[in-house]
Amino acid sequence: MNGPAAPTPSALAALRPLPLTAVRLDPAGLLGGWQERNASATLPHCIEQLTAYGNLANLRRVTGDTDAAFRGMWFADTDVYKTLEAIAWEAGRTGANPEFFADTAALVEKAQDADGYVNSYYQVDHRAEQWTDLGFSHEMYSAGHLIQAAVAAARAADAPQLVTVARRFADLLVRRFGPDGAEVIDGHPEVETALVELYRLTGHRPYLELAQRFLDLRGHGRLGQGRFGPRYWQDHQPLAEAQEATGHAVRQVYLLAGAVDVAVETHSAQLLAAAERLWESALASKTYLTGGQGSRHKDESFGDPYELPPDRAYAETCAAIGSFQLAWRLLLATGKARYADEMERLLYNGIAASTALDGRSFFYSNPLQLRAGHDGSHEDTPSQRLTWYSCACCPPNLARLMASLHGYAATGSSSSLELHLYAAGVYSSGDFTLDVRTSYPWDERIDIRLTTAGAEPWTLALRVPAWCHDARLTVNGSVVRDAADDGYLRITRNWKAGDTVSLVLAMPPQALAAHPRVDAVRGSAALARGPVVYCLEHSDLPDLPFEDLELDPSAPLSEVEHSLAPVAILATLRVRPDISDTLYRPLTSGGPGTTAVTAPAIPYFLWANRDPGPMRVWIPLAAREE
Amino acid sequence: MNGPAAPTPSALAALRPLPLTAVRLDPAGLLGGWQERNASATLPHCIEQLTAYGNLANLRRVTGDTDAAFRGMWFADTDVYKTLEAIAWEAGRTGANPEFFADTAALVEKAQDADGYVNSYYQVDHRAEQWTDLGFSHEMYSAGHLIQAAVAAARAADAPQLVTVARRFADLLVRRFGPDGAEVIDGHPEVETALVELYRLTGHRPYLELAQRFLDLRGHGRLGQGRFGPRYWQDHQPLAEAQEATGHAVRQVYLLAGAVDVAVETHSAQLLAAAERLWESALASKTYLTGGQGSRHKDESFGDPYELPPDRAYAETCAAIGSFQLAWRLLLATGKARYADEMERLLYNGIAASTALDGRSFFYSNPLQLRAGHDGSHEDTPSQRLTWYSCACCPPNLARLMASLHGYAATGSSSSLELHLYAAGVYSSGDFTLDVRTSYPWDERIDIRLTTAGAEPWTLALRVPAWCHDARLTVNGSVVRDAADDGYLRITRNWKAGDTVSLVLAMPPQALAAHPRVDAVRGSAALARGPVVYCLEHSDLPDLPFEDLELDPSAPLSEVEHSLAPVAILATLRVRPDISDTLYRPLTSGGPGTTAVTAPAIPYFLWANRDPGPMRVWIPLAAREE
Repeated sequence: MNGPAAPTPSALAALRPLPLTAVRLDPAGLLGGWQERNASATLPHCIEQLTAYGNLANLRRVTGDTDAAFRGMWFADTDVYKTLEAIAWEAGRTGANPEFFADTAALVEKAQDADGYVNSYYQVDHRAEQWTDLGFSHEMYSAGHLIQAAVAAARAADAPQLVTVARRFADLLVRRFGPDGAEVIDGHPEVETALVELYRLTGHRPYLELAQRFLDLRGHGRLGQGRFGPRYWQDHQPLAEAQEATGHAVRQVYLLAGAVDVAVETHSAQLLAAAERLWESALASKTYLTGGQGSRHKDESFGDPYELPPDRAYAETCAAIGSFQLAWRLLLATGKARYADEMERLLYNGIAASTALDGRSFFYSNPLQLRAGHDGSHEDTPSQRLTWYSCACCPPNLARLMASLHGYAATGSSSSLELHLYAAGVYSSGDFTLDVRTSYPWDERIDIRLTTAGAEPWTLALRVPAWCHDARLTVNGSVVRDAADDGYLRITRNWKAGDTVSLVLAMPPQALAAHPRVDAVRGSAALARGPVVYCLEHSDLPDLPFEDLELDPSAPLSEVEHSLAPVAILATLRVRPDISDTLYRPLTSGGPGTTAVTAPAIPYFLWANRDPGPMRVWIPLAAREE
Repeated sequence: MNGPAAPTPSALAALRPLPLTAVRLDPAGLLGGWQERNASATLPHCIEQLTAYGNLANLRRVTGDTDAAFRGMWFADTDVYKTLEAIAWEAGRTGANPEFFADTAALVEKAQDADGYVNSYYQVDHRAEQWTDLGFSHEMYSAGHLIQAAVAAARAADAPQLVTVARRFADLLVRRFGPDGAEVIDGHPEVETALVELYRLTGHRPYLELAQRFLDLRGHGRLGQGRFGPRYWQDHQPLAEAQEATGHAVRQVYLLAGAVDVAVETHSAQLLAAAERLWESALASKTYLTGGQGSRHKDESFGDPYELPPDRAYAETCAAIGSFQLAWRLLLATGKARYADEMERLLYNGIAASTALDGRSFFYSNPLQLRAGHDGSHEDTPSQRLTWYSCACCPPNLARLMASLHGYAATGSSSSLELHLYAAGVYSSGDFTLDVRTSYPWDERIDIRLTTAGAEPWTLALRVPAWCHDARLTVNGSVVRDAADDGYLRITRNWKAGDTVSLVLAMPPQALAAHPRVDAVRGSAALARGPVVYCLEHSDLPDLPFEDLELDPSAPLSEVEHSLAPVAILATLRVRPDISDTLYRPLTSGGPGTTAVTAPAIPYFLWANRDPGPMRVWIPLAAREE
């Protein structure tokens, strides 16, 4: 049972995904717990909201089963498709298969036009506008999510009937926009990766060729200026020439995910290099400490290099999910640990922060700072997570990622297994089965026991994150010092059932600085421990003036228990001395320090689960004592 | 001949405007030079663009003289009205009265419906939508600009015919929305101040009462949520209760300008207090060093308190103009020097920066930083000024301000004259005439000679800007030490022709810091001299890595000549030592300093008149030598 992104046997691939059935995460672990919460809270919530917000009724208008007015965004169908995809992965994970899935798949099939077209916005009031505004219509973006739901249903839910619907639409795209059709592209990439996945499922090569065609046609200004110029939808420059991630962040990372998919299936080193190059450019100067990308609200875009304001971080949840999916594809293609490092950073920070503890409210944008006096009255910058959004792309996107999360934890072959994300659970590859026990990322120790083992030599590869400078490995109690280290410690040997491996990834709390060109956080530090970024939140500092707190950089950091997380970081803070209220004043040397207080910083991803109020990841540094 | 904002004799007023004819600025001075440039370049440019961009054709569609398609924004008429207003003030200033004015006024009159309605967008294709979308239709906003053009024409251009057109529209507003009409407000304030000005011109009280009614009706959610919530258009809270400037910056300052106009004419201390309170809140935490306001691009809004990013400063030109007009009204009402201080800051920074040296290209947003590698490919964040914008509200707004600038320089009565802006020129009040000679703000000395003097004792009041800590005053060569100082030095005496007054406002270059809550510029300083804010621009630092420069805070600042301005500030910079490219890294103490170089900082308002490239007002501070 394949998971998301399943390269064909002939694809370029340094690593191979495991079947979804090969990994079962322990619900007691953090990642396994998130999967359980997704199943019990987020997914049912999404299903409820699709009814409450009219997404299902929109499709029923097409079938003539309601005459209610169209509601929501013109691409509201995609929320339905992403929810179906999530349900399909969840069915594969647990066998759960709610009636909602079959009913909704049947509804989509009934709504589909004879030629394969389905899009509830463009099928009733706006039929004449079909295919007339590809820059903003999201028609192929919507087709892409339908296709991805169908692929998931076929792979994981043993429910292939949606593939028939998706193929009808895909075949329409091939007829209209394939080699004999119009030379057009969609303003919002997504169909590219979906078409490759459909090719992988069906073996039907025209889908792959259409995806490649869309990549080739992009970058020549076909979409025009739009509202934000051609960089917004990455149509300013062909991928092969582009040097910099730019424009709408979700569009950029979805496009690159599709590019990697096409590259590995067509063996295009140039295309793969372009994807790596643009990913690199983003990581070098356009990515938040949380992995979030896209610093601008106005056009949801990557800003200029080093433009990374924490308060106005847009860092859309869907961009973080797309970045995760892109990193996964690059990891498979290249085997480089840095891509798995980025998946981990995203997972514990930029992605995790979007969901509330109860799994039923979400952030769309993920700022790294909320100011005292923040105006959270509008959904663009809410003070707390909201149960839904007028553009609700993110919640069902989270649902589909979480339902398939076990598919991203490891890779393997008959001769190896690579652990990328350290989550408690059972992992199998070929004749080998591992029982992984850990409270990672709270605990730095990961204990692995082989419960079954084949007869041949076999390699276990364990990622050592770039943040870790002290990894200690033991096998059957003996310290191993000579494991190769290219970001993975690799142990090749004849294993037997009962063998144990223990990895300790030292994760002392530490203060981090940003590159000095990141003006927005100059003179500040962030706290982190292992892969988890921490933050100060007002609830932990009830009697202190939150906006006047500074971090004492000379005081040691320590760990402390907290009601929200097993490990908080205990920091030493100073209250900035009273100063005049004047907004601008002559520059003078810093005033004297004040009494130090200690206070806990909590994991960033757990903020905004208490009363609304200020939060900050980047803490101003107190002047050092002279 | 009254200028902009002319309170009636019975209005609350601490100060009274002088007639426009009482002040003539010397074209050799900076402000007088700007007026000349406006007349010779900006105004003709606006007239050309109104033709090129279809604004005039839009009105000719209504009169049936063209069947060309409507072009531009749905409030494109307002660019025509603002240009007419500018021409009217210019006619009053110099007697110039181009045919364009009469032709265009006649066109507007011909386009006007029988009931008084005129709006070229809503008169042809969209007639059924008239008055149906007051949140965004800008119909009353447009009426307001028509009215202001008419008031200017009547006051300054001896061309009262446009008043007939404006009154027809204003009378329609009174019928539809007055005491017997619908309880509505416009999403974009502007008509309020215009109606009060029309009342001042005509004495027709229903105009004043309608303005007051619009203020009273605002703040109760009548406009609904819109795209950005009710704060966006200041409809979330009645003015009397509001504590904080918020929402769309132009809307906020225009609303407050109207509130002051209504307050002084109706003697409402409560309304005046609200306007002062909200102004105060903006100045305390939501105003850039340049006077610019509105830090967000997405909804063009005031951000949260202390949210003042220099790179993403929106600081719309029209907001700076509106803030200037508001400060002028508050100055007249209260006589407080701080309002004149703010007018000066805006004039030499936030407003002046918007116009290129040649007067024919403009900034819409006015950032305080442009990064190396900036993407200036879209008009939202251009690297240089553009000749026009798809929403071209700012250029003709600048034209009307500059054409009437002499009206804001001084106030007076039969017994006094108050000089607020120090510009070379001739000023008269009652029987007294002053010849003011100065190269301010480049020169700190202002020389004043009385060329005519009345027989009665008379007071000359000279503003001492808050930035000045050393003002030296002499009268007929004798030092005056005991002049009252409430922001103004006041000299009351029996004057005679030939008397001389000299004021020296010491303006050494200085480094400024922001309130430490302004996270975006922490650890940085800005350079200023007198009212002028300076910046580093790449053209002056051709061989240095612009993004790695730091200001040596211990080195003295000095003055130096520059090709762009009589006085540049010579600063000592250090190049930040080479560091790793990693975006985030463990916090360490600062590295060693590097060789110091000196380089000129130019007046901020003159940036982007050379090759495009990086600029910054806020300069990171180098670590002090240990």
